[in-house]
Amino acid sequence: MLTVSEAIKRLTSDAKVRVSTENLPVIEALGRVLAEDIDARLNVPPTDNSAMDGYALRFEDIDRSGKTLAISQRIAAGHPPQPLEPGTAARIFTGAEVPAGADTVVMQENCAIAESGVRVTELPEKGANIRPCGQDLQRGQRMFNQGHRLRAQDLGLVASQGLSDVRLYKKLRVAVISTGDELLEPGEANAPGKIFNSNRYTLHGLLQGWGMETIDLGIVRDDPEQISDRLQRAARSADVIVCSGGVSVGEEDHVKAVVESLGSIDLWRIAIRPGKPFAFGQVMDTPFLGLPGNPVSVLVTLLVIGRPYLLASQGIANWQLTPVSMPANFSKKAVGREEYLRVRSSSAGLELYPSQSSGVLMSTCWADGLAIQPIDEEINKGDPLDYLPFPLFLT
Amino acid sequence: MLTVSEAIKRLTSDAKVRVSTENLPVIEALGRVLAEDIDARLNVPPTDNSAMDGYALRFEDIDRSGKTLAISQRIAAGHPPQPLEPGTAARIFTGAEVPAGADTVVMQENCAIAESGVRVTELPEKGANIRPCGQDLQRGQRMFNQGHRLRAQDLGLVASQGLSDVRLYKKLRVAVISTGDELLEPGEANAPGKIFNSNRYTLHGLLQGWGMETIDLGIVRDDPEQISDRLQRAARSADVIVCSGGVSVGEEDHVKAVVESLGSIDLWRIAIRPGKPFAFGQVMDTPFLGLPGNPVSVLVTLLVIGRPYLLASQGIANWQLTPVSMPANFSKKAVGREEYLRVRSSSAGLELYPSQSSGVLMSTCWADGLAIQPIDEEINKGDPLDYLPFPLFLT
Repeated sequence: MLTVSEAIKRLTSDAKVRVSTENLPVIEALGRVLAEDIDARLNVPPTDNSAMDGYALRFEDIDRSGKTLAISQRIAAGHPPQPLEPGTAARIFTGAEVPAGADTVVMQENCAIAESGVRVTELPEKGANIRPCGQDLQRGQRMFNQGHRLRAQDLGLVASQGLSDVRLYKKLRVAVISTGDELLEPGEANAPGKIFNSNRYTLHGLLQGWGMETIDLGIVRDDPEQISDRLQRAARSADVIVCSGGVSVGEEDHVKAVVESLGSIDLWRIAIRPGKPFAFGQVMDTPFLGLPGNPVSVLVTLLVIGRPYLLASQGIANWQLTPVSMPANFSKKAVGREEYLRVRSSSAGLELYPSQSSGVLMSTCWADGLAIQPIDEEINKGDPLDYLPFPLFLT
Repeated sequence: MLTVSEAIKRLTSDAKVRVSTENLPVIEALGRVLAEDIDARLNVPPTDNSAMDGYALRFEDIDRSGKTLAISQRIAAGHPPQPLEPGTAARIFTGAEVPAGADTVVMQENCAIAESGVRVTELPEKGANIRPCGQDLQRGQRMFNQGHRLRAQDLGLVASQGLSDVRLYKKLRVAVISTGDELLEPGEANAPGKIFNSNRYTLHGLLQGWGMETIDLGIVRDDPEQISDRLQRAARSADVIVCSGGVSVGEEDHVKAVVESLGSIDLWRIAIRPGKPFAFGQVMDTPFLGLPGNPVSVLVTLLVIGRPYLLASQGIANWQLTPVSMPANFSKKAVGREEYLRVRSSSAGLELYPSQSSGVLMSTCWADGLAIQPIDEEINKGDPLDYLPFPLFLT
């Protein structure tokens, strides 16, 4: 059996960027992936500017005897100043450009105003209250590497350079197929022997959360011809195919044979729980990820094994997650696979959902994250566990 | 000065749900907020079903002498079975309904097949390999409370109940205004004394990440009449107004007086860094959040102070965040306000961005989260800090 990290390594070593690029306005780029490095082309701020409402002056001109300095100009933010007349002060406001010749801003609370000018009542340090040119970004400085997924603050930083649009990778198109004679679509009438399809919804949600485009190919019955038709449609329209169910080698599992006939497939035995059967292959030239059928296994294998491959295909350079450490507030016997436990954080540590069965999707909805139980290690109350809050997987 | 938690408490005590509801298909509900409680109306699974490919039988019929049992039916997933004929076994596949009269499934690896039937070669436990009816959800069980924001797995769980649509809160409409004579829109020609507007982009990204609808009201100049017009437009079209810059009480800060003339406003002095000036008021009947102008202050005050208010207005019941504990890999002097440090997690602990100035937006792009320095407490290398990875704020 492959360990989880061996499986991820093998899978991602086969990954490559599978999307072309497009230019989009920065305002539409949230959650999208940069297809270019971005370096600063401007200094931010572009000049020294005032951090306070106050008076800009030359430090040497402050008279310790308390003489007033005439006010020679008024500088509001957005209005370029004149050079400072020697021996005078300039009234200045937050964000306004410091005039040439001034080296210090005295905050207004430390000044007294008289008819003849301004008197400094509390001596500042030389250079005080000035945000220097280039403090945030200096021309030529690397801002983002290609492959970075843009967050809110990243849009702000790009905009601060005056850039109105950016070169992005197009959204990865992922075809989603659910297999099984037992599946009904929500909204259909219930019937004996049937269950409602949940995997389609979980998969769409995960893929959309990663900023990908889903191509919904619905439910396919346990019938080789139907499976073959659907997979060919998927291969023609998508960059990657994700399929839940039917990848085992039982008499009723036809997906493996069909994928083999259209390309190639490997069944992987991965030491992960939930989620043992996992298949990777090609339908024509389109990569195929075959997930188990159980709803928790679908979630866990896509988050843990599938995510790195999909993010790499989308052009994302860094898909590694850093778990946080949190103590277990439960005990649990060792198991022979790496187990992804559905847990919830509390002030007492991590709580375990009572049923960890792969069929119990409620465990993942109750939980706020996954904790990792290493292979063959038991957990005792108080042991530190690697914990992955669900929101981390969204990055 | 208010502490951060006092400010949040005061602000959220004034909050109420500000949106009406709509029905939407489950597949479109990712990141949306439930406007109804959801209880299970079906047992999931609906009947006992097989966890394995194997043979369903009555435990008592297993003959320890090794006699074969005739195979009386074949049950695939999705096809309802006949009651089990006494003294026989049923061929059964993963996910298929266990027939009435059977109480155990023997996995096929522990059976021998002969012409006359199946012989059990390894004795199972009674009840083995059966997923009991209602193991995931039992009819009447609470699945989600009103005010829950739907994640991928939540969509799956709702779908497993056969529900094709859900009652959701409409998206909160938030008007975004940036103020300042110094601001240029990215794409415009650069000019002396000007800077490019970044706050608009950061704010749009944050609000969209919370599943809200943004109403873009652009840049407004430091002019009372223009500010008044824009705020009135905002109040007519939005559920909440968010405005960056201009809320101080300086000569060039007109927002406070204008909001006062159109409704009411309080300037709050909050012991937070970055981000001191914060205003809360009403323009006509629309709540108004006034943020500082500096880009890091905008991000931090909206994440820390504004987020709880906005999420509550959107109908989200639980906006509390649980920080994780991680050691500092730096030392820092005490400050008189609660400081939200831009940090990055590493195997050595949390690293600090060299400049923590409120003008240095690059610090938030370099960082992967915020660490909290409590008021008047110094930080020594190795001290555990409350750390909030940025993705946590997305919930």
